[in-house]
Amino acid sequence: MSILVVGSVAFDTVETPFGAVEDALGGSAIYFSAAASYFAPVRIVAVVGEDFSKQKLDFLTKRKVDLRGLEVRKGKTFRWGGRYDYDLNSRTTLFTHLNVFENFAPAIPKEYRDSEFIFLANIAPELQMEVLQQIRSPKLVALDTMNYWIDRSLPALFETLRAVNVLIINDSEARQLAQEANLVKAAKKIMAMGPQVLIIKKGEHGALMFMSESFFWAPAYPLESIYDPTGAGDTFAGGFIGYLAKSRNLSPDNYKCALIVGSAMASFCVERFSVERLQDLTTEEIRQRFLGFWHMTHFDQNSGF
Amino acid sequence: MSILVVGSVAFDTVETPFGAVEDALGGSAIYFSAAASYFAPVRIVAVVGEDFSKQKLDFLTKRKVDLRGLEVRKGKTFRWGGRYDYDLNSRTTLFTHLNVFENFAPAIPKEYRDSEFIFLANIAPELQMEVLQQIRSPKLVALDTMNYWIDRSLPALFETLRAVNVLIINDSEARQLAQEANLVKAAKKIMAMGPQVLIIKKGEHGALMFMSESFFWAPAYPLESIYDPTGAGDTFAGGFIGYLAKSRNLSPDNYKCALIVGSAMASFCVERFSVERLQDLTTEEIRQRFLGFWHMTHFDQNSGF
Repeated sequence: MSILVVGSVAFDTVETPFGAVEDALGGSAIYFSAAASYFAPVRIVAVVGEDFSKQKLDFLTKRKVDLRGLEVRKGKTFRWGGRYDYDLNSRTTLFTHLNVFENFAPAIPKEYRDSEFIFLANIAPELQMEVLQQIRSPKLVALDTMNYWIDRSLPALFETLRAVNVLIINDSEARQLAQEANLVKAAKKIMAMGPQVLIIKKGEHGALMFMSESFFWAPAYPLESIYDPTGAGDTFAGGFIGYLAKSRNLSPDNYKCALIVGSAMASFCVERFSVERLQDLTTEEIRQRFLGFWHMTHFDQNSGF
Repeated sequence: MSILVVGSVAFDTVETPFGAVEDALGGSAIYFSAAASYFAPVRIVAVVGEDFSKQKLDFLTKRKVDLRGLEVRKGKTFRWGGRYDYDLNSRTTLFTHLNVFENFAPAIPKEYRDSEFIFLANIAPELQMEVLQQIRSPKLVALDTMNYWIDRSLPALFETLRAVNVLIINDSEARQLAQEANLVKAAKKIMAMGPQVLIIKKGEHGALMFMSESFFWAPAYPLESIYDPTGAGDTFAGGFIGYLAKSRNLSPDNYKCALIVGSAMASFCVERFSVERLQDLTTEEIRQRFLGFWHMTHFDQNSGF
């Protein structure tokens, strides 16, 4: 039940109406493994610069996150700066310094090649494909991508999509990829491109999951205080894939539970800046949040008409 | 289990990317009673002009909708024109001719005064209050309002809010009424104004319901073809209150089912222009759509961690 994530490690500088952080730990591989490691051991492939202190990741190694694939290269770590408006839905990127991430060429350590659950975070589709070719026999491959790659690398993205099981994107990316405004029609077009499961994230409005025979909808947890939405999508993916890896059950019903677990983990993520809230959750806290989702969606299907 | 609705009857001229209708039957009282009449007898208080033919409402009288409170006044019927963009979320009002609706002074017929379930559709809060004072002993009073009244008649709205059980508004109205961007905090402030139940409609993103001890969420049904969102909110209210009136059960659990029934009825409404889709639904169709909501939200709360 080993999980592999290939993605970014970053220093994020974030402003929201509720505060600001500078050079806080971030990046898709970090958020993903912070969430997934509550469920199963995680292996990271990513790159940092010489300015990165691995001690920052002690909370991950304590939870059996394997950092042997974290390459240290000459130069600086990837830095991103952004600002969120009062409604926390619209975000402005203030700067993107790719630094060592610019020439990231993920090398999968030999001892990672038997990984079974793979998350290809948002990197160039060509690199995502190269990673996949190095994995012996994955049980499940999930992919994230973004408008940048849909604009610039569509043929490579199409090729990669044919090789994955699960695609996790947001609603505007889904509309753009399918060139279709209606999400139900867009989902059909995207699933014809390869993935058997499509998850469309809608931020504070929850997430929709399309499977071959059914669809499912998870709400976002209504929170009084949302401090920082950064990383919520990768945290969602971490909870989703972590839960599937732990339960080793790829039935549609279990995918539904995984979607809720992912949503629960994302709801913790946004309660604090950076990965703060994801450092020392208890199983009981996670289970209570999961049950919170149940209470807010459960109704009696036998109620009379 | 008699239901009373006080609201508008209108001729709507609507353009969407999927077609257009001119002078089609509309108005809050019409959409509401079209939906509620599948569950319990409905009484309408509204006003039309001399240009209105009551034959248009034959589909309602067939379902025991009582039109004795539909006043015919000298002049023209209320007319509204609007256009929806491709995403169907943003709507532009092209014209509003209030006509006879401008001086609507709802007179509640004597034989309506024992009504138990009351829906005060979007009219001036002063009029809503006058209506309420004419009802002998309502079991449940639900209210709709809009930004127009929040801007212009806030003191009267506050007074009316103290007298109602359920407030049904959309997310931007909730934020404006509470002067609070976070919906959870906004809900608390609004419930302190009077209503024990607050429903916040979010269009294609579903609806949130806040009760004193809990909250609940209903998704919107993912449809491949949404033709016309006009009237979806009043149709939702009709399903919600109709179901409560039929089941005569005001427990929190039954409110949850009602929220789903309302969402199911709204999902039919938007499938066609005007009230077309609401004219001849079968109980089985409604029940199947209700079960569709169950399948798209149900998961096993006992799944292991």
